[in-house]
Amino acid sequence: MNRIQLVIFIFFVSFSLPFSAQTDDMVKEDFQASSVNQSGKEFPKVNSEGLVRVRVEAPKANNVQLDIGGMKYDLKKNDEGVWTGESAPQDEGFHYYQLNIDGASVPDPGSKYYYGAGRWGSGIEIPAQDQEFYEMKDVPHGSITENIYFSEITQDWRRNFVYLPPGYFENFQERYPVLYLQHGSFEDETGWASQGHANLILDNLIAAGEAKKMIVVMDNGYANKPEVMQNAQDGDGRPKSAFEEVLIEEVIPNIDKKFRTKSSRSYRAIAGLSMGANQTMRIIMNNLNLFSYYGGFSGTSNYPGNEKIDTRTFLNGAFEDADEVNEKLNVLWLGLGTKEPEVFFKTVGDFREMLENKGIDYSFYESPKTAHEWLTWRRCLYQYAQLLFK
Amino acid sequence: MNRIQLVIFIFFVSFSLPFSAQTDDMVKEDFQASSVNQSGKEFPKVNSEGLVRVRVEAPKANNVQLDIGGMKYDLKKNDEGVWTGESAPQDEGFHYYQLNIDGASVPDPGSKYYYGAGRWGSGIEIPAQDQEFYEMKDVPHGSITENIYFSEITQDWRRNFVYLPPGYFENFQERYPVLYLQHGSFEDETGWASQGHANLILDNLIAAGEAKKMIVVMDNGYANKPEVMQNAQDGDGRPKSAFEEVLIEEVIPNIDKKFRTKSSRSYRAIAGLSMGANQTMRIIMNNLNLFSYYGGFSGTSNYPGNEKIDTRTFLNGAFEDADEVNEKLNVLWLGLGTKEPEVFFKTVGDFREMLENKGIDYSFYESPKTAHEWLTWRRCLYQYAQLLFK
Repeated sequence: MNRIQLVIFIFFVSFSLPFSAQTDDMVKEDFQASSVNQSGKEFPKVNSEGLVRVRVEAPKANNVQLDIGGMKYDLKKNDEGVWTGESAPQDEGFHYYQLNIDGASVPDPGSKYYYGAGRWGSGIEIPAQDQEFYEMKDVPHGSITENIYFSEITQDWRRNFVYLPPGYFENFQERYPVLYLQHGSFEDETGWASQGHANLILDNLIAAGEAKKMIVVMDNGYANKPEVMQNAQDGDGRPKSAFEEVLIEEVIPNIDKKFRTKSSRSYRAIAGLSMGANQTMRIIMNNLNLFSYYGGFSGTSNYPGNEKIDTRTFLNGAFEDADEVNEKLNVLWLGLGTKEPEVFFKTVGDFREMLENKGIDYSFYESPKTAHEWLTWRRCLYQYAQLLFK
Repeated sequence: MNRIQLVIFIFFVSFSLPFSAQTDDMVKEDFQASSVNQSGKEFPKVNSEGLVRVRVEAPKANNVQLDIGGMKYDLKKNDEGVWTGESAPQDEGFHYYQLNIDGASVPDPGSKYYYGAGRWGSGIEIPAQDQEFYEMKDVPHGSITENIYFSEITQDWRRNFVYLPPGYFENFQERYPVLYLQHGSFEDETGWASQGHANLILDNLIAAGEAKKMIVVMDNGYANKPEVMQNAQDGDGRPKSAFEEVLIEEVIPNIDKKFRTKSSRSYRAIAGLSMGANQTMRIIMNNLNLFSYYGGFSGTSNYPGNEKIDTRTFLNGAFEDADEVNEKLNVLWLGLGTKEPEVFFKTVGDFREMLENKGIDYSFYESPKTAHEWLTWRRCLYQYAQLLFK
């Protein structure tokens, strides 16, 4: 069994084994309603040890489970037909989860809903030691604007969310640099401004004078041409993505036309998480005339390869000339959570080794005690945004 | 049993009786995926007769129901543990619904989610004959902007969504009139720009030259002072709302400061649906120095009274001087769906009778074949917006 097969094996085993909820005498009874519950909803709750307690009324059910972090925990029914139970301790930060009621995987009616893992569903927040950096504070707030456009390339209506920094609406003379910020696989353009808290992270950094005022554009990384969906495919059997074409030919010109941007390459950054890190690294290296800052959060374009990187062929030789890369990229930034799956350590590690062998400057950040999840990426944005446009 | 008791009786009976799904030979097999399904989801589906068909995998369940329009329809299980079934025909337009799995009321994992009926949950769209007016078309699109503010009155963070018309971001010299547009009870500030399609309705009207370019502000109609929530209550046992104070003292000054508005009363309109119609009528009649256009969609401030309106006391005598009302209100507009519950016909009817007795000018619109639901209110906005600021 190779490494990838092992990861897949563990993944499926973890989904197939039911776990009993914690026994009552182990549980610390300081549960509080999750900060992302629906208005007025008491459950789900979280305690100081990161246990998640859910409650659902299902008087006629045979079996109800809490499905979180790749594990399923059996709940217990009381005399009124109400099921309750807890998970094992969860990592700090944001997690997707769901309930399983007699075999049906459904959202928890107590939580707010988020797009991730390929569906709109429940999310929960385990309070983090450092959560202050993405909290709502009494500082000037920017705005999130929904920007609809028709793509001639994909022949459909698309949208992005645009963060406009505090003062954008009042100061008609000021122009701002732009960060293009992408989500991961099975996520969409809603993630960064919702569970990602990109707006609050920027508001707080800007208020503290730790980041420049900037516009942040969050588009949808899934884009296909109509005919490509039918015919051509790239090597791994998936339809070839048209996202680079959409971003370069449609999104950037549209943003530069509609908003008061600084539109030279020195004022344009790009970053992404996981699949978005992979996509945006490819895009910036194909378009060094357009961008000068790169951030890869939990991903690189050599994912998921097992081979060492050959700079003569990798991304069409884009890293072959170290001097050019050092000159063109003001910041080349990589971040990773310490609890991420091995494949990310391996591929990001291979990429860093290549950079070091070539003598290419870069920054590397490790998010303590977080996995391939949103607290890692919130922290990455917090770190990365401080380096931009300076 | 009086009329109100009868309505309440029918309401509860309708929730307690399970209905069998349509038998197969009655069902027209031209179902299509709902237009508001999650990306890639095949179910729920709708056929040309307005039947809703749901499907959910729940192999261990004893009983699964579709709960829509105040009725519960039993689904049938196949050999693979998948439950399927249909509702009776539903009215054209948008409806909230949910699944009931062995007694648990949960969102359908196939639909997108909306805030209404006091929860985030499933919604479905039955295609309407006239849906063209709120469709996404190849016209210039305005933007929805999320505007966060701290309310000193309620001592909490609040937000509104602001529709900025096409051209707002590019034409720095242009100023626009403003419509304040409110949701109904158990709904929130997300409704009008989501299931309400306020942005698309305005985009289409503006492109056709049928409405003036305007800003639309959609705030949350629930607002309470911290101390009021503990102590004072008005006559009906609910805490006294601080929404009028928040709107007049905080929201309007904030909007006029942040956005390029025309800020005189001739360029300010207000409207709301159901509870929002009731609230906004009270607000405009208390503040005729600030607004000159009123729209009441499925509601008036005499709701739910059984008595005829006494203009000497109703809203502190605001309708007593007909000449003043006629002079101050450029438009007094009322709308109602033909299938609304009796209490709305009665109270809106009483209000119209009062206006006619006093000789106060008004417009009245009936939405054909719609109940107390969003297609009524989309149509109301479509009609009302055409009359504003002309």
